[in-house]
Amino acid sequence: MEKKRIVILGGGFGGVYTAMRLEKLLKKLPEWEIVLVNRENYFVYQPMLPEVVGGSLGIFDTVSSLRKLLPKTKIFVREIDQIDTQNKKIILAPQFTHKPYELSYDHLVFTLGTVTDFRGMTGIHEHALPFKNLADALRIRNHMIDAIDAAAIETDPEMKKRLMTFVVGGGGFSGTEVVAEMNDFARLLIKKTPSLKKEDLRVVLIHSKDRLMDRELSPSLGEYAGKILQKRGVEIRFGEHLASATPQEAILKSGERIPSKTIVSSVPSSPNPLIEGLDLPQERGRVKSDLTFQVEGSDHLWALGDCASTPHPSGEGVCPPTAQFAMRAGKVAADNIVAAIQDKPKKKFGFKGMGMLGALGHRCAVAELFGKIKFSGILAWFFWRAVYWTKLPGADRKCKVAFSWLLDTIFPAEAVQLKIAPTSGIAPLHFEPGEIIFNEGDIGDYLYIIVNGTVDVLKGADQKVAELTKGKYFGEMALLNQRTRSATVKAQTPVDLLALRKNDFGLLIANFQELRQTIEATEAERSK
Amino acid sequence: MEKKRIVILGGGFGGVYTAMRLEKLLKKLPEWEIVLVNRENYFVYQPMLPEVVGGSLGIFDTVSSLRKLLPKTKIFVREIDQIDTQNKKIILAPQFTHKPYELSYDHLVFTLGTVTDFRGMTGIHEHALPFKNLADALRIRNHMIDAIDAAAIETDPEMKKRLMTFVVGGGGFSGTEVVAEMNDFARLLIKKTPSLKKEDLRVVLIHSKDRLMDRELSPSLGEYAGKILQKRGVEIRFGEHLASATPQEAILKSGERIPSKTIVSSVPSSPNPLIEGLDLPQERGRVKSDLTFQVEGSDHLWALGDCASTPHPSGEGVCPPTAQFAMRAGKVAADNIVAAIQDKPKKKFGFKGMGMLGALGHRCAVAELFGKIKFSGILAWFFWRAVYWTKLPGADRKCKVAFSWLLDTIFPAEAVQLKIAPTSGIAPLHFEPGEIIFNEGDIGDYLYIIVNGTVDVLKGADQKVAELTKGKYFGEMALLNQRTRSATVKAQTPVDLLALRKNDFGLLIANFQELRQTIEATEAERSK
Repeated sequence: MEKKRIVILGGGFGGVYTAMRLEKLLKKLPEWEIVLVNRENYFVYQPMLPEVVGGSLGIFDTVSSLRKLLPKTKIFVREIDQIDTQNKKIILAPQFTHKPYELSYDHLVFTLGTVTDFRGMTGIHEHALPFKNLADALRIRNHMIDAIDAAAIETDPEMKKRLMTFVVGGGGFSGTEVVAEMNDFARLLIKKTPSLKKEDLRVVLIHSKDRLMDRELSPSLGEYAGKILQKRGVEIRFGEHLASATPQEAILKSGERIPSKTIVSSVPSSPNPLIEGLDLPQERGRVKSDLTFQVEGSDHLWALGDCASTPHPSGEGVCPPTAQFAMRAGKVAADNIVAAIQDKPKKKFGFKGMGMLGALGHRCAVAELFGKIKFSGILAWFFWRAVYWTKLPGADRKCKVAFSWLLDTIFPAEAVQLKIAPTSGIAPLHFEPGEIIFNEGDIGDYLYIIVNGTVDVLKGADQKVAELTKGKYFGEMALLNQRTRSATVKAQTPVDLLALRKNDFGLLIANFQELRQTIEATEAERSK
Repeated sequence: MEKKRIVILGGGFGGVYTAMRLEKLLKKLPEWEIVLVNRENYFVYQPMLPEVVGGSLGIFDTVSSLRKLLPKTKIFVREIDQIDTQNKKIILAPQFTHKPYELSYDHLVFTLGTVTDFRGMTGIHEHALPFKNLADALRIRNHMIDAIDAAAIETDPEMKKRLMTFVVGGGGFSGTEVVAEMNDFARLLIKKTPSLKKEDLRVVLIHSKDRLMDRELSPSLGEYAGKILQKRGVEIRFGEHLASATPQEAILKSGERIPSKTIVSSVPSSPNPLIEGLDLPQERGRVKSDLTFQVEGSDHLWALGDCASTPHPSGEGVCPPTAQFAMRAGKVAADNIVAAIQDKPKKKFGFKGMGMLGALGHRCAVAELFGKIKFSGILAWFFWRAVYWTKLPGADRKCKVAFSWLLDTIFPAEAVQLKIAPTSGIAPLHFEPGEIIFNEGDIGDYLYIIVNGTVDVLKGADQKVAELTKGKYFGEMALLNQRTRSATVKAQTPVDLLALRKNDFGLLIANFQELRQTIEATEAERSK
């Protein structure tokens, strides 16, 4: 017998805490199963990510295996292609094959979080590094090491300064935390590089308001944070915006240009594009849910965390996009899902927030509790570590992080870099005779160019409609028309191919006039 | 006054130990400086790499910062473009700019090691994962996690088995060590994934001889290693070759096909292509050096380690490509370089090898000392760890590895995966008016397509020769003719570009008939 299914979309704080609570509650309801869909197979402990940039935590210290955290939940590690609320199913992107995967649900929980979206922000989109997830933290760290390594042997003094200038846009929580870690890390790197002088280092934070973390902290603490960073050598440009970026420089709204090879942007995150197209009540791209986390007007859809717009229990505004709210919301949502299944009354969310904590690197932090108690400095920093450490999931994770912190105190972070060769945009492939390259009905994800050999194009039940050889390409029709494959392609001889990803092909064809013309001509011919 | 310079190419065991020794010896010779050129800013402790695949060591446990190991050496983190022994200089590839970097030398040390080269091996080149460096170890680990995650939700039983089959080609030292770790890791992953059965797992090792590690160990130990692995569930195909691979399967020389999505090849490494073209005495792609490590017929060139062909001190054959030989060779080479500088007699290399150690995963190893003492099992495994741990450079590295091993004993390795989004083959770029896209004389590394805006093409002292707008491309001339840029290109307005890497462009143009024709026509027009 097929089980009834609760599907949770997203493995951040909201999703993981919903699933954890459901695992407990569903012991009594064995006919139900929990499925959690997430792009990665791990949960990232976001509040500690800035420490990965600075290196006081190792890469894997901030992540926990989802399967280990949630032993009774089925974990689907996949990209979500489409959410079909009409037919109550989720379409997952293929991996290792070209076939999409369908997943039906009885209850659906939206905990998709937000995404970084620089589209439409000229220059930022192309040249600014985002800071949102683990890969971003690692990329910023690697990029800083590259820049300092290059500066160490640069002979042009102007270029040397450019390489030693680091610009961060946005002085909210994450921007402030990351600039603090970057500043500490850059100074550590320079100290270890004899050919560089610390006078040449510039770390610039650009913030639109007149004090840091203006939305999150009270004025006095925000001002304190700014002073601490300035004392440590960070230049802060208040009342400014990062307007654009090029490979050479950051461009501010006032027109000022800061020569730099490293530009980080921590702009507010955008709603998840998966939600945009859904026929659900929304507010600025977020799904509207009530205080029970039920989506307005539905009895089996739930939304919480950063992707939801839920009223604040105090009656004013909405729940803020923070870990402390998402964790508690997850528990309440799980209780209410089970209440809905059992036809029992649901309970309302009542958490009003504990306060805010922000790390400023170098054993310093700011803290504000219950809107009243404020403190800062090394005491706040110890408090910061203690609070977040206590909340780390699992004894082994706690132990590993404690060891990392201990080791970091004894031995300063090493500036080693994980270099992963850039994947080529064009992948070479080899097929043996009789192997299928793709099937009719598969998702169209690549354009293929034949380097050597012959392929058969088949329709329906193995009816051969064409044969293609060296120098020809195929697979463009599904890409141009956003459709699935209209034919099966099979290797007749051993075949060597080049595969060009759909996105890359799309960029080329949209902008390369000559190429578009020849491909359109071929397609017209083939569609006849 | 410019210092005299010893340049070391490569930061493996040979290069690092040469530089370490030189740092000591050159205290008395302040007019000399040491430069070490390496692609990464770290030294990888190769013997422990298989443990990274299995997860008993963290990613960074096996690496040490070169700058920290060699505080008095100038570290150049760059790709080497060309070695010019005629003019005594090295050309380094550009980074952050398009200008190459010239580095002259008085003494040059070749410690370039070998490279993985699957070219010409149909299918292997496209679909087998190499196992050589840190990025390879991580890629194999990530790929295994992906495959098991995909198998966990796969509904097609045939595909499920394919995803749960792991094939390794080559049963020498590194192949045996990596298959042992992969086998342990796969079993751990499956144990933690409720929907998978361990009976469906296949780990296959393909080896051309009739026993494992036949070149490195005596018959009895090689056979013992094979039996241990078989007992742990590894299928071994003796007397077989990995002939080809496709996205679906591994193909053996006998024609047998093993359906698999994970194929690892540990074929013997190839000589470094940088050496191939040099006018130096060579033997099968390796630079011939004598027992003082001087390159035959030269007084300022030195070669040691895997990239060199040096007679074995015993008089028979050549020095083997192992860490123990490279470390000791580095010291002798450094002594001899200083002897050459001071016109003193050089000494000959006399090390004959201590024996061999191979780890078989799961607390088991084989050891053979001085060709006489042989032992295996958990004792050999402790010995293996003790020996390699003692040789780890630096107290902090020793301490971190010890902690990792301790934690791994308490908490089994977590299967978390570092997911880094694939870099697009086509990079979007933005330039502001007046900014230079490239200069006349720069290296041609990209083709550019104009998405928006106008650029000026300039020759000589700012003489405008053309103007290009939306939909046009530029930069193809230097790519097609392997030349440097023949003009300067400057943004006239804000410009959005797409940049296609030289290699990707080369692949496309060589195989995409229509594209080649249009581009050749444009080029003929522009060259007039």
